[in-house]
Amino acid sequence: MSQFNINHIKQSNLPELKCLAEEIRQFLIHKLSKTGGHLGPNLGTIELTIALHYVFESPNDQLIWDIGHQTYTHKMLTGRTHEFDSLRKYNGLSGFLRREDSPHDIWGAGHSSTSLSAAAGIAYAKQLNGDEHSVIPIIGDAAITSGMAFEALNHIGDAQLPVNIILNDNGMSISKSIGALQAIFEQGKEQAGIDSVASFFEQLGITYIGPIDGHDLFELIQVFQRIRIQKRPIICHILTQKGKGYEPAEADTKTHWHSTPPFDYDSGETLIKKEQVIHSQSWSEIISNELKQIAMTNEQLIVVTPAMIEGSKLASFKETFPHRLIDTGIAEQHAVTLTGGLAISGKIPFLAIYSTFLQRAYDQVVHDICRQNLHVIFGIDRAGLVGEDGDSHHGIFDINFLQSIPNMTIMMPYTAEESQWMLQLAIEELTGPVAIRYPKGTVKQLSASPPSRLKETFGTWSVMAEGKDAVIITFGPMLDIAIQAREFLQQEGIAVRIVNARFIKPLDQDMLNILINEDLPILTIEESALLGGFGSAVLEYIISNKKTVSRFNRMGIPDHFVTHGSREDLLEALSLTAHDIVANLKTLIEKGR
Amino acid sequence: MSQFNINHIKQSNLPELKCLAEEIRQFLIHKLSKTGGHLGPNLGTIELTIALHYVFESPNDQLIWDIGHQTYTHKMLTGRTHEFDSLRKYNGLSGFLRREDSPHDIWGAGHSSTSLSAAAGIAYAKQLNGDEHSVIPIIGDAAITSGMAFEALNHIGDAQLPVNIILNDNGMSISKSIGALQAIFEQGKEQAGIDSVASFFEQLGITYIGPIDGHDLFELIQVFQRIRIQKRPIICHILTQKGKGYEPAEADTKTHWHSTPPFDYDSGETLIKKEQVIHSQSWSEIISNELKQIAMTNEQLIVVTPAMIEGSKLASFKETFPHRLIDTGIAEQHAVTLTGGLAISGKIPFLAIYSTFLQRAYDQVVHDICRQNLHVIFGIDRAGLVGEDGDSHHGIFDINFLQSIPNMTIMMPYTAEESQWMLQLAIEELTGPVAIRYPKGTVKQLSASPPSRLKETFGTWSVMAEGKDAVIITFGPMLDIAIQAREFLQQEGIAVRIVNARFIKPLDQDMLNILINEDLPILTIEESALLGGFGSAVLEYIISNKKTVSRFNRMGIPDHFVTHGSREDLLEALSLTAHDIVANLKTLIEKGR
Repeated sequence: MSQFNINHIKQSNLPELKCLAEEIRQFLIHKLSKTGGHLGPNLGTIELTIALHYVFESPNDQLIWDIGHQTYTHKMLTGRTHEFDSLRKYNGLSGFLRREDSPHDIWGAGHSSTSLSAAAGIAYAKQLNGDEHSVIPIIGDAAITSGMAFEALNHIGDAQLPVNIILNDNGMSISKSIGALQAIFEQGKEQAGIDSVASFFEQLGITYIGPIDGHDLFELIQVFQRIRIQKRPIICHILTQKGKGYEPAEADTKTHWHSTPPFDYDSGETLIKKEQVIHSQSWSEIISNELKQIAMTNEQLIVVTPAMIEGSKLASFKETFPHRLIDTGIAEQHAVTLTGGLAISGKIPFLAIYSTFLQRAYDQVVHDICRQNLHVIFGIDRAGLVGEDGDSHHGIFDINFLQSIPNMTIMMPYTAEESQWMLQLAIEELTGPVAIRYPKGTVKQLSASPPSRLKETFGTWSVMAEGKDAVIITFGPMLDIAIQAREFLQQEGIAVRIVNARFIKPLDQDMLNILINEDLPILTIEESALLGGFGSAVLEYIISNKKTVSRFNRMGIPDHFVTHGSREDLLEALSLTAHDIVANLKTLIEKGR
Repeated sequence: MSQFNINHIKQSNLPELKCLAEEIRQFLIHKLSKTGGHLGPNLGTIELTIALHYVFESPNDQLIWDIGHQTYTHKMLTGRTHEFDSLRKYNGLSGFLRREDSPHDIWGAGHSSTSLSAAAGIAYAKQLNGDEHSVIPIIGDAAITSGMAFEALNHIGDAQLPVNIILNDNGMSISKSIGALQAIFEQGKEQAGIDSVASFFEQLGITYIGPIDGHDLFELIQVFQRIRIQKRPIICHILTQKGKGYEPAEADTKTHWHSTPPFDYDSGETLIKKEQVIHSQSWSEIISNELKQIAMTNEQLIVVTPAMIEGSKLASFKETFPHRLIDTGIAEQHAVTLTGGLAISGKIPFLAIYSTFLQRAYDQVVHDICRQNLHVIFGIDRAGLVGEDGDSHHGIFDINFLQSIPNMTIMMPYTAEESQWMLQLAIEELTGPVAIRYPKGTVKQLSASPPSRLKETFGTWSVMAEGKDAVIITFGPMLDIAIQAREFLQQEGIAVRIVNARFIKPLDQDMLNILINEDLPILTIEESALLGGFGSAVLEYIISNKKTVSRFNRMGIPDHFVTHGSREDLLEALSLTAHDIVANLKTLIEKGR
């Protein structure tokens, strides 16, 4: 695999580079057919990456990749081809970039639109240091429409920082890109519209070059050689095709190939076990379906999504109610405050947003929604561990940052039925801000009858299994693991009560008062950051209302970032298995004797 | 005062309106000379507000003021003239807008740049509802450069939402405005540059009208009448002068008159008691001075501020080190990630940012700085209650949202000396992200010798007063109140130990272990949101390491937003006075008997 490295390509001629691109393309398609991964974005950036490494001298010239999921070719050319069998596995090759992995990985990012700000900082420092090497952020056409990217453009242009921006325009990104700026890019692809896109950037003080065919190595290399010697802000508009060179991915209009599970190379069909296909429905699907049901009778319901129509399974909702779904593009801040505008106008907005991306709009949640106590429902998708995407994508902070905001209600369903009545409760009965968290995995179907008096369920927990020796309080998918632990302990004659804390805020104070009176050992479990989390809130309540607290423990995610890997591997690494629960409970019970 | 209302002005002719503007101007100058308040912005918007209310039919036509501090004329015209004596006082007239105050206050905001997103949501809802009334966000030239405003422009232009944007361009805002977009506005003021500013917005799909003299009532009314009947996105570029009509404020280049304390009408001199002038130095000043000292010997130190050179007292630093201060304008997200770029390039960035504005960049703190464990120092100004600015400005959530982020260190000095060694420690010794919080008030000077071995102070608390009956653990200005409470109790023969928890994260586990062994009643106090805060973290530690916890209590800000008022009034309303501490401690001590 010696051809797959920077030194080799620097000595290659154009036909050899073209061959190399084809080899990388076939390598990636084959490897990813086994491991899964971000196939579409990576097939689109092969020639671009080769040309960048051919022209620039990484790591002294610094490539700043916006979102690392398009960097597989970069990983190959910087010595990591042999690691692709372990892609996105625990202890294996990350699907994104990490600074600790390679001196060529200058900047790590799983969230979009950070590369321009990072590049501005680097360029500023290089100027002070008298370092003339280049800084090259590579940013997508959807990512550049995000507010923080504009803030960076505004600064780079004004301060004339020497940043060579590569705009990787595949006209698509995760969802179809959105917005007026996007329309300008579209125009730019036609000869007549180039003036328009050029003038947009030139007004900001940034020289525009393009558009350039992102799969034409000769053209790419020529242009990069030209911009490398210029020390001023430049944006180089490169047109690439997602999925380039693999027919099923090229034909993809619904971003199925953005991130794919293992697939059959010849047919392009996803390899999923049959029973999964029959039984499983994702949480995103069940929520989206229920929203559609409610929307049939409640005309005020409007769904808002920041570029996640596919991820949050909202295509069918959009088809049924085209005017009641607003896709803001990658603009989480705007999306949240927009829901505030809808709410004060009599609409009931449901914002479907991944937990990790809601972080982008923390202030808007505090300042615009909760402070004004507006009726906005936050559908927090991908709450908890997300597995293969790793540290930038786990939804493990939202409880911590949301529960201290006044007026906020937080719930998490365990079953499909629970999610249905929670949505009804949130949409039809409650009046302030409500967060409904749901995880990445598949839904548990339990035949339970919905509560007869909906409003009275507000703030209540439910006992899922009785027990006289100890109590586990938890919510969401951790209930499955708690139930498993309960079975282990049952075999030893220990009876554990399981409480489904489906309301994370407010706590069920009535049930807590009962527990306080019973004086049983209590273990809280959360698939979320432990410090200042749900268990802390329970502890706060108990200590405020009980003379002494002795047998109490909290399990959750300790105070470090969590890497990538399967959910099972991660739970084991975090000591959040049924066996860990058993051990903790035994210690707790022992403590009281 | 019947002339000061909407109905009256609608029946007035132009000369009468001009008279009215002058009356309002004199009224505001006189009132604010007594109460203090945002004089500069409000003198700039008198004619604008009169013209808006003359032409549009509030509240059916909806005025969405971006940041409420420019709305004094709006308050007067909507029936609140008689409340100005209580401006920004506890239970008095708010300095911003609040939805609950008036049907004309459509949208409340203390943070900038939210009006366009709110207006987009309202306009979208109006379209669905078939409501043809106008939506008119009024946004400043600095606020519109923020990322979230761009996200909204991108959406409004693309979806052709009928929003009539009023761009109130005073070329200044809080600090001198920054960025490439600002340069475009500047050009727009010259006849030759109008094309440039027009084309920027027109490319985004928004019709540009302007520039218009914001103090010419005739021109304003004509233009507003023209845009009112158009149902498409329009931006109306209005040039106003901050401080218009009051000479000292007109001449202001350093934004002293943006928000002013009471002043002498004739001389324009600030009315502050003499002893304050002599003895007091603000926390912003002391930190800024110390940064300048350190910067003399440490060439890598760079200060970044999002539009707060004046607020954070950085003018002198900028003068001394013009290339080592970066003002990003109102762009908190960019500012934080920019520091990441600086940090990986060998610089040591210090970001001076108000606690409440850091909320805007929560994700950047998590994803870019802490996840990559970069050496960035967050100087969190205005931590705790800020008083008169009220609910949007209190810095009472940062401990909650920061402490659950892995790798983060959080400290808060009590004295000037402490802040000095903390800065040295953070800049010279530590390597990851560090937050140093400091309050709005004035600095306490205590003659303490700095620690001899700096690094060993990391994570340590200090005992400020001994006591054998109970322990108070607190930090920052609450230490003063704790000491006062200690004195009260001492008179009753109760000896309370006072611990300065100058490190909020990590906790001083050694000292906590000692306290656990001693088994004294413990009271934690924080001028910060109680739920999931510092006291919780202490409780978490104790319960994890102690067999039973019985005499423990936490004081802090309960789970609701805090209104405006003097610090003293607010502490009383929040039950955070020395007397409250005394009562709590007595109960705790009693509990053990």
